[in-house]
Amino acid sequence: MRADTRIRVAVCGFGTLGKSVLQAARSASDLLPVAVFTRRPTDRIRAGDGIAVCPTSQIRPWRDRIDVLLLCGGSATDLPHQTPDLAADLDTVNSFDTHRLIPAHVEAVDRVARANERLSLVSAGWDPGLFSVARALFAAFLPNGETATFWGRGVSQGHSEAIRRIDGVLDARAYTVPKRSAIEAFQAGRCGAPSATDAHRRECYVAVEDRADRARIEREIRDMADYFQGYETAVTFVSRTELERDHKALPHGGLVLRTETDEGRPSARKQLALSLETDSNPDLTAAILIAYARAVFRMHRRGRVGCITPLDVAPADLLPLSPDEARRAFL
Amino acid sequence: MRADTRIRVAVCGFGTLGKSVLQAARSASDLLPVAVFTRRPTDRIRAGDGIAVCPTSQIRPWRDRIDVLLLCGGSATDLPHQTPDLAADLDTVNSFDTHRLIPAHVEAVDRVARANERLSLVSAGWDPGLFSVARALFAAFLPNGETATFWGRGVSQGHSEAIRRIDGVLDARAYTVPKRSAIEAFQAGRCGAPSATDAHRRECYVAVEDRADRARIEREIRDMADYFQGYETAVTFVSRTELERDHKALPHGGLVLRTETDEGRPSARKQLALSLETDSNPDLTAAILIAYARAVFRMHRRGRVGCITPLDVAPADLLPLSPDEARRAFL
Repeated sequence: MRADTRIRVAVCGFGTLGKSVLQAARSASDLLPVAVFTRRPTDRIRAGDGIAVCPTSQIRPWRDRIDVLLLCGGSATDLPHQTPDLAADLDTVNSFDTHRLIPAHVEAVDRVARANERLSLVSAGWDPGLFSVARALFAAFLPNGETATFWGRGVSQGHSEAIRRIDGVLDARAYTVPKRSAIEAFQAGRCGAPSATDAHRRECYVAVEDRADRARIEREIRDMADYFQGYETAVTFVSRTELERDHKALPHGGLVLRTETDEGRPSARKQLALSLETDSNPDLTAAILIAYARAVFRMHRRGRVGCITPLDVAPADLLPLSPDEARRAFL
Repeated sequence: MRADTRIRVAVCGFGTLGKSVLQAARSASDLLPVAVFTRRPTDRIRAGDGIAVCPTSQIRPWRDRIDVLLLCGGSATDLPHQTPDLAADLDTVNSFDTHRLIPAHVEAVDRVARANERLSLVSAGWDPGLFSVARALFAAFLPNGETATFWGRGVSQGHSEAIRRIDGVLDARAYTVPKRSAIEAFQAGRCGAPSATDAHRRECYVAVEDRADRARIEREIRDMADYFQGYETAVTFVSRTELERDHKALPHGGLVLRTETDEGRPSARKQLALSLETDSNPDLTAAILIAYARAVFRMHRRGRVGCITPLDVAPADLLPLSPDEARRAFL
């Protein structure tokens, strides 16, 4: 029996998100970060006093010394196989965010976790995650309404990376910006939920090689299917210095809006809105992962096994408070 | 074994809220309203086809024909004794909203419900209720931030009623209005959460008897402790016709705001906001009570007993969907 009752957590994947998660875990008084697992050479990484740094291949021997493992890899290649693999041996939390693949991911993780009496939570973060919770609550409370989600203004790392792969581009930063006009039209009940292309525009800041063909680069950006095609897109060429100076941060934001109008009585409107603004997308995502790690620890202790998502978690389980303290603080 | 799998609900208290709750229950496809209980003469009330109307004293004989009883009485005199009394025999949901008395109310209801293996949920509504959930989620996800709640613009029925009791007043309507300047100062991190009196002003529309002393009435309103004293208060005298024409609706609204700023880096700001606007406060509260009735039914079936609040309910339990449908719709 341990004397220390703190929840022992470990971080798997030590990129931007993993570093933010470790930082958030260190400042949570009810959590004890014990290890970082990485594919990088471990000898160059300093995680902090008392925190082991080990190769990813060495996670399993730690299984009895970790209460919850925070998976901080990417949704494209890391999480889809890593999560079901590790969910057999440990309770885990991830931020899997490829929306259309979530049901299959839940099934794959659930099968393994259930068979091994473990609990894993997938798709924590702000969308999916907090925004999913808002969409669910709003649909429950305004059952006849309609919901729209707007993202931004914020840096889209996937889109920035896509521009960087174009020949002649040195560096780039792409922002997603919600269109004020689309938000207002939806709020006024003048239209249903707009499509992503109607609701947003893209702003791209691009540093190119001296002799690069700017017209071709701009054309290649605008024509990129799934990324920029169909969106109102502004391309601005800047120097590398300007890019570094003005576009280094990773702000993001978003808005979930649900409106319910009485037919024939346009003034009879109900509206629920949840909005988010953050100067650091990874720091906010990290804080959310930490809160869900706490919930996974408690829910497993109460006997819950399998795969869950933020939709399955009661608010009280996210807080470092007793039920009575939470009632006094928040009701 | 019933062939009909709908959740059988009944309404206790048939005032403004009770009527809205019955209406909301009738339009929910997974609910079946079976009875209305009231202290008024039952022969004048028509609740609709197949819905019994009975005196409040007759609830107990119905206990095996009701899955969840929705208590729609007032927080001042009805709910404090009615809820623990009925929680012994039925699963219940109420909207008890006297914030400082909630912990004691939870304890009283928990004792009875637990002893009888029943489940009751208290304090559903938008505040307490949805706003409590928002405050809890925001505190979990921005652990170093500060939260402020603003109410309005909306009709305050308690304040309207207080004015109506003044000698010479025929009718009155009082609005709570959040101060834009207080919201902006809090958002900018220029101050902590403002007090209720600093954050809101009151607008009163008052119809008085022809020969009434308006100056005295205005003074009595302004000086009313706990209601108007300390608030910036505007009193406007209007005719009864104007009051009926322009102030009949029961709109309300509110805003929960949490900001987290980095000391020394004022631009490094995180903010979460939940806002609400409704043209009918009772209709929104009714929809929320209905969603929590659904959750109580499911949670009791899974073995939960005692007294819970909205902080203990997972979003998925509020929706008339299977877990897989909810994941596909909201994640």
